[in-house]
Amino acid sequence: MLHSTRTRRAAVLVPILALIPVATGLVPDRGAQPPEPANRDASEVAARIVTASLLDGQAYDHLASLVAAAPHRLSGSPGAAAAVEWARKRMTKIGFDEVRLEPCTVPHWERGEVQSVRLTAPASVTGVELRCLALGGSVPSPEGGIEAEVIAISSWDELAQRSADVAGKIVYFNRPFDLALRSTFEGYGGAVDQRSRGAVEAAKAGAVGVVIRSVASAIDDFPHTGGTNYQDGVTRIPAAAISTLAAERLDALVARGPVRLNLELDCRWHGDAPSFNVVGDLLGTESPEEIVVVGAHLDGWDVGHGAHDDGSGCAHALEVVRLLLDLDLRPRRTVRVVLFMNEENGLAGARAYARDHADELDRHVFAIESDRGGFTPRGFSTNAGDEALAVLRELAAPLDEIDAGSVDPGGTGADISQMAASGVPLAGFLPDGARYFAYHHTENDTLDKVSERELRLGAAAIAVLVHAVADREQPLPRNR
Amino acid sequence: MLHSTRTRRAAVLVPILALIPVATGLVPDRGAQPPEPANRDASEVAARIVTASLLDGQAYDHLASLVAAAPHRLSGSPGAAAAVEWARKRMTKIGFDEVRLEPCTVPHWERGEVQSVRLTAPASVTGVELRCLALGGSVPSPEGGIEAEVIAISSWDELAQRSADVAGKIVYFNRPFDLALRSTFEGYGGAVDQRSRGAVEAAKAGAVGVVIRSVASAIDDFPHTGGTNYQDGVTRIPAAAISTLAAERLDALVARGPVRLNLELDCRWHGDAPSFNVVGDLLGTESPEEIVVVGAHLDGWDVGHGAHDDGSGCAHALEVVRLLLDLDLRPRRTVRVVLFMNEENGLAGARAYARDHADELDRHVFAIESDRGGFTPRGFSTNAGDEALAVLRELAAPLDEIDAGSVDPGGTGADISQMAASGVPLAGFLPDGARYFAYHHTENDTLDKVSERELRLGAAAIAVLVHAVADREQPLPRNR
Ligand SMILES: [Zn+2]
Ligand SMILES: [Zn+2]
Repeated sequence: MLHSTRTRRAAVLVPILALIPVATGLVPDRGAQPPEPANRDASEVAARIVTASLLDGQAYDHLASLVAAAPHRLSGSPGAAAAVEWARKRMTKIGFDEVRLEPCTVPHWERGEVQSVRLTAPASVTGVELRCLALGGSVPSPEGGIEAEVIAISSWDELAQRSADVAGKIVYFNRPFDLALRSTFEGYGGAVDQRSRGAVEAAKAGAVGVVIRSVASAIDDFPHTGGTNYQDGVTRIPAAAISTLAAERLDALVARGPVRLNLELDCRWHGDAPSFNVVGDLLGTESPEEIVVVGAHLDGWDVGHGAHDDGSGCAHALEVVRLLLDLDLRPRRTVRVVLFMNEENGLAGARAYARDHADELDRHVFAIESDRGGFTPRGFSTNAGDEALAVLRELAAPLDEIDAGSVDPGGTGADISQMAASGVPLAGFLPDGARYFAYHHTENDTLDKVSERELRLGAAAIAVLVHAVADREQPLPRNR
Repeated sequence: MLHSTRTRRAAVLVPILALIPVATGLVPDRGAQPPEPANRDASEVAARIVTASLLDGQAYDHLASLVAAAPHRLSGSPGAAAAVEWARKRMTKIGFDEVRLEPCTVPHWERGEVQSVRLTAPASVTGVELRCLALGGSVPSPEGGIEAEVIAISSWDELAQRSADVAGKIVYFNRPFDLALRSTFEGYGGAVDQRSRGAVEAAKAGAVGVVIRSVASAIDDFPHTGGTNYQDGVTRIPAAAISTLAAERLDALVARGPVRLNLELDCRWHGDAPSFNVVGDLLGTESPEEIVVVGAHLDGWDVGHGAHDDGSGCAHALEVVRLLLDLDLRPRRTVRVVLFMNEENGLAGARAYARDHADELDRHVFAIESDRGGFTPRGFSTNAGDEALAVLRELAAPLDEIDAGSVDPGGTGADISQMAASGVPLAGFLPDGARYFAYHHTENDTLDKVSERELRLGAAAIAVLVHAVADREQPLPRNR
């Protein structure tokens, strides 16, 4: 069931590995080097990793190679298949001990050729196009579009109060991303429900279409796509995002009087498609059956190149292992890179991983995901309980030298969250968040928006924490 | 001697202000608002400033307006004159109480039309152009260029040891920016001596020209210019920087055997030219004769638009006063924005300011400069003595909420450093440094490289510290 490519060793199933003593040579040991003192200086190891990444890091090469090989990686698309093949080859080239394609079944949706939000009234603006993108998963409009009056809605409460006015109209959800919030992830979290739930809630009240203000921190003319959901029993209506500049224009128009627009989308659903998570193991020297997962998602939207979301996370994860190999820092436990498929519109890969590895999740001692872009590292957020949190803080402390050593309770990652119920302590890599939601899910999320040095620093920060957890004598305390 | 534009009040010379009680109305007071408690919560004020900047900040508008009005601002050029006029108008529009053009005399150098580093041997690469920029201040080559053998030099020691081989050659200074240093400013500081001293040291040994590896943290094909110096009594030889990619190519060629190149530059010197610092005051409510300077430099190189260097600093400085006015947070002391002319190639503006204000430097209680780009704020570096350092740390602490509250000993700013000898405590704004030296002094230093949110955060951080120092009951302890 698992498509396996073994690169340096014969086939060894993980459960068996625990029974094989290191001395057999089947499990890689530290080779001819003298044994290192158990208490080798964590700060010195961290500094070596950071220096290696800054001087000769390849994170940016991984990313450049990925976006060249598979710029558009939406689940089920040829681009996603190309990304899977790219990742398999890249892991093999880096020297992972095992590389596997693990199957999952993903939705296959296509944007189509037509996406248009065109004003039809008042007369002064008739014909004006507002820059838009269909929301991921949207149904198409009828050919020629849906023409209707716009009703601007700023909150779910307002939708409830005005529900009698909604029937036959296009609901325009215009609640802005709150720029005053210090965390842009909180700003995003406070507005993205319009994108995910808007089509369902508007349709319940009889709306014929939905337009949302892009969930974005920048005021510009790049619309931001992203997944929208439907619900069985509720009419599926087409949904699109307009740029924040277009939204500000529409806000001004709506404030002056009735506005009508034509919404046309020719999105297509192709049902389910087979795909894969790409999984690579760097086997541990002493407890290879114990696993530290480094996750990111390989899929991405079909606009831009997903350079930050989440090409950078994939580059980080691959680079963690490359750095550890390069520095001969193979840890006691196995470091497993999982490049998940279908984070953006379904989480099929994440669910498949948690399901297919259910019997070894109790030996997953830690999982970390990088899915907040390739920016300067600031620290980590975690769901770890008090005991594990204290350990993580101690292990991340050497990263204070690059101002990236903070560990605080918070969100982790959509993919690895599927393992939370099993008690695996989880963390999310936390880079500087100022720019992420300017590029996220837009045509603008391209390689030139990623700083090589920032990406190298991020890869190093993750590698330091992953190495420390995977090489620690005791496993991390589990969550209860 | 000072060209003065007064915008909201009649002419009042600063020394006289100290004698005028607030009640006369000549000095702005806090207006109709109820008096605020002396111990008003510093964190609350800081939070208000940050929120206002994040929501409605205009720092990016200042910057966009500057680079549109005066993209190229090298001292003595028409662009620099346009920038002066722009700054005067912008300060007036923002509502500074006084705006003055303060004269200084600057060098006027032009790059010219021709800059070429062309390989002439070995035969396999003959005719290949290496991307280059003349160093600022360079003399021209003879027409057609200087053709000579290349001698690669990695250190001053090596230059001394091989000085007998240098005569008649083009010295190629190839010591790289040390990417492993955690501070890119240290990386820059460790390599920039090749740019500033290279032409003099090479000429002393008889070289006919100089080519340097760009002083840059990125490996790409954008050469980085910057000032080079000459010395009386030492032959002035032409000097240019090649891109880091070109440097790596040249390194490889030199390692294999003799390399020759042709260096052609048609730079021109036009002698001295009149110019100005642009100075704007927000007069203090209680001690207007005591001054807190917020500095940046208005000049910039003639390639790219100086968006980070130092358009962002100018935008920060202007925005500090706009925010304080907007929030009705006029402090006890005067906040003076000084947009210095000629930081890049002479410091004429900085010297003129320190000279012309010598008699009030003892009433300059603090000066801060922003000249490290418009990136996410991380803190400040300062030359303050222990006592003032402790105060600055306390005043900056509220910025911990945006991870920008650190204050540590370190460099401050080239312009304000002219005031150091007078005991003025100085600070430099310290943003994230990962990207600065990828853009610095290149064609790439353009508006699209500046994040609006990062710029707004930086302006807020500086505003918080400036307000706290300027509004503190006691002046900051002076340096001895
Ligand atoms: Zn993502
Ligand atoms: Zn500068």
